[in-house]
Amino acid sequence: MKNLPLSKVYQLLEPGPVILLTTAHKGRTNIMAMSWHMMLEFEPPLVACVVSNADYSFAALRATKECVIAIPALELASKVVEVGNCSGRDVDKFERFGLTPVPAELVAPPLVAECFANFECKVADTRLVNKFNLFILEVVKAWIDPAQKNPKTIHHHGYGRFAVDGKMIKLKSKMP
Amino acid sequence: MKNLPLSKVYQLLEPGPVILLTTAHKGRTNIMAMSWHMMLEFEPPLVACVVSNADYSFAALRATKECVIAIPALELASKVVEVGNCSGRDVDKFERFGLTPVPAELVAPPLVAECFANFECKVADTRLVNKFNLFILEVVKAWIDPAQKNPKTIHHHGYGRFAVDGKMIKLKSKMP
Repeated sequence: MKNLPLSKVYQLLEPGPVILLTTAHKGRTNIMAMSWHMMLEFEPPLVACVVSNADYSFAALRATKECVIAIPALELASKVVEVGNCSGRDVDKFERFGLTPVPAELVAPPLVAECFANFECKVADTRLVNKFNLFILEVVKAWIDPAQKNPKTIHHHGYGRFAVDGKMIKLKSKMP
Repeated sequence: MKNLPLSKVYQLLEPGPVILLTTAHKGRTNIMAMSWHMMLEFEPPLVACVVSNADYSFAALRATKECVIAIPALELASKVVEVGNCSGRDVDKFERFGLTPVPAELVAPPLVAECFANFECKVADTRLVNKFNLFILEVVKAWIDPAQKNPKTIHHHGYGRFAVDGKMIKLKSKMP
């Protein structure tokens, strides 16, 4: 995997793909699937996301204040759903689903080798965790897999229905 | 436009479409384009979004604590970009871009007739406004246009590049 400039992180999260989030706590790693995330700032990239206190990842994220956001392409869609269908309380999801943990550079949770982008994150604000399970993350290091060309992401519409990225269009926007 | 149950709002926002946000303040309405938003809770639906303090809409949203989220389909893409390219300080965007304001039921800002979904929102939490320009909204009423069948949304990748929804896939998810 290749370094991705932090200034480009928003271009991958802003479109609303389903992502994976990894944590590491007390000698165990875990992965969850997630659609409730958004950009908050371009650079350094800040990301808000919801990790429910019902999720096994919640305690790990709150205690260690570290995670990795990994973005899967369409080819991983069925594994992503399986990751979301079970809990790290019961199963080692990396092993169960044949996903490959790769050591990160600045955080303890692992990257996911099969994902086309991986963002190492540290928790930057927890003020809305108690009320909304809302964590604010700072992306401190970003990786992209140059071998995955034009990855198509998936976008959850509820109950296992996902829109897959279709064509790309270019319009004359003045926005970054 | 037809009533949409509040329990279904997340199915339209979770996939990360570009949306429009309308406000009304001191006798003027305005519209902005936005990609930085996420779901926070299913029902009542809570939505987090960033409205920058550089945006003309910021003062209106903070003062009135009301807005409408309107979701445009692909057919409106070039108008959405034009909405994002100018400021309500200088122009009446409804008039300039031929968009039709429709009175909402529970809030002062108007719905956008041309959008396939419109969500009336009230600000529910402002604790992260000063630090991150992050507003927490509660959707209090939702509308859907049954005449727009299978609308395709657009997803911003930066600098005017948008992914258009492609095919829908169905997987065996246990998630709502």
